Amino acid sequence: MKTLKEIEDFIVNGYKTYIPHVSIDCAIFGYHDHRLKIMLSQLEGFEGFCLPGGYIKRTETLDEAASRIVKERTSITGLYLKQYKTFGDPDRIKWNEIDIEKLSQIPMYRKLKSSWLKDQTISIGYYSITDFSLVKQQPGFMSPSCEWYDLDKIPSLLFDHDQMVKDALQTLRSQLYYQPIVEKLLPKKFTLTEIHAVYETILGKRLDIRNFPKKLVFIGLINKLNEKRNIGPHRAPFLYSFNHKRYKKALEQGTTLI
Amino acid sequence: MKTLKEIEDFIVNGYKTYIPHVSIDCAIFGYHDHRLKIMLSQLEGFEGFCLPGGYIKRTETLDEAASRIVKERTSITGLYLKQYKTFGDPDRIKWNEIDIEKLSQIPMYRKLKSSWLKDQTISIGYYSITDFSLVKQQPGFMSPSCEWYDLDKIPSLLFDHDQMVKDALQTLRSQLYYQPIVEKLLPKKFTLTEIHAVYETILGKRLDIRNFPKKLVFIGLINKLNEKRNIGPHRAPFLYSFNHKRYKKALEQGTTLI
Repeated sequence: MKTLKEIEDFIVNGYKTYIPHVSIDCAIFGYHDHRLKIMLSQLEGFEGFCLPGGYIKRTETLDEAASRIVKERTSITGLYLKQYKTFGDPDRIKWNEIDIEKLSQIPMYRKLKSSWLKDQTISIGYYSITDFSLVKQQPGFMSPSCEWYDLDKIPSLLFDHDQMVKDALQTLRSQLYYQPIVEKLLPKKFTLTEIHAVYETILGKRLDIRNFPKKLVFIGLINKLNEKRNIGPHRAPFLYSFNHKRYKKALEQGTTLI
Repeated sequence: MKTLKEIEDFIVNGYKTYIPHVSIDCAIFGYHDHRLKIMLSQLEGFEGFCLPGGYIKRTETLDEAASRIVKERTSITGLYLKQYKTFGDPDRIKWNEIDIEKLSQIPMYRKLKSSWLKDQTISIGYYSITDFSLVKQQPGFMSPSCEWYDLDKIPSLLFDHDQMVKDALQTLRSQLYYQPIVEKLLPKKFTLTEIHAVYETILGKRLDIRNFPKKLVFIGLINKLNEKRNIGPHRAPFLYSFNHKRYKKALEQGTTLI
């Protein structure tokens, strides 16, 4: 945790270390056993929730900044993070509706009135998906908490973060067939039932259990292995693995379709 | 065209009207009759070419800014423009390799040394595709020319614009099946030969003329019409049209595949 003095220095002088007018917000989705969650954080002095976010150091690439921000909040390193959209509506943060006087009474915000943080800011959206059962979240330095929320039960978020979640989810869904996203959520060898559950949960719709996995095999995204998993006296489904070469080709040359 | 005084005012005081530290660069692709081009512009005082770009007014959304920038350069209004990636490597513009002294001798750059334009800047990439035979390009106010170049013959570009073109092309290709991009390049009713040529040219690879168009029908992106086009004594191919509903569904729910 940062000291009060360090936070105040960030509020006053942070623009020397970080690029002003630009932030990063991360939609971190979590999947486990048919459930899809998203990580929401609180922001000191604000009522409600937002996506975990932060600023870009002048020496960092955007991807490095996103990784650092996520690590600071979740302790996760090496998370699959993908930039999906930059948000820049002039009124995305409605400063005229924010009570600066009241916020300035919070010790760390004492010098907020003249802070670079109040500059008009565009925000670069990143999304990620991970197994939420493996993640220990932790508060950020201006954020008292950071927690997983079921995606279908999240409250209305601060700023333009509802739109960010909507767009992140749409991107995640549209990239399910040409980014190796699902791979991060399954063991190396998996059953058709397992991959079916991941796709169904992320897409938020029913997919025919008899036909859907066959299509994944048909388009070459997964390979059938000559190996079974024994899960019961008469139940030993075949195992499958991802076809990385096919994913790579899909990514470089268009969708996996043709 | 802007006067010298207006340009100088932009260089000195532009940050009051535009958001500093953030720019937009546009990869405008042009298709016509089996040829794919891209629009490149020159930048006053620099040797070489770059993508047409500009800054975001504090009152504009990002999409509005991109539209304005493209309109200023190409006279095109209402162009299909899509944000694809934001670029922010700290060394994307190598100011230490740029001869500011020499540039400052150009009248419009007289006050460049203390300009906000020299701030570290991230750039939001937009791509677009249009029929290049319909576009009259024109120079921008810091750009003496703006021309179409065959994509396979473009020179190495300034700054990180080679990477921008590469990423824009990859995005364009990967979205060909779930964004109604191709539609902008064809008449409302088209033949399979016509749509085949567009896909083949944009993807930059051969697609089997016997099977490829059938796949587009199979996945529902195009519909066969009960109508033919007479193009010769014994040649009257069937016409096809786009299935907008299917595109919309693909965009909302994932690819068109499943």
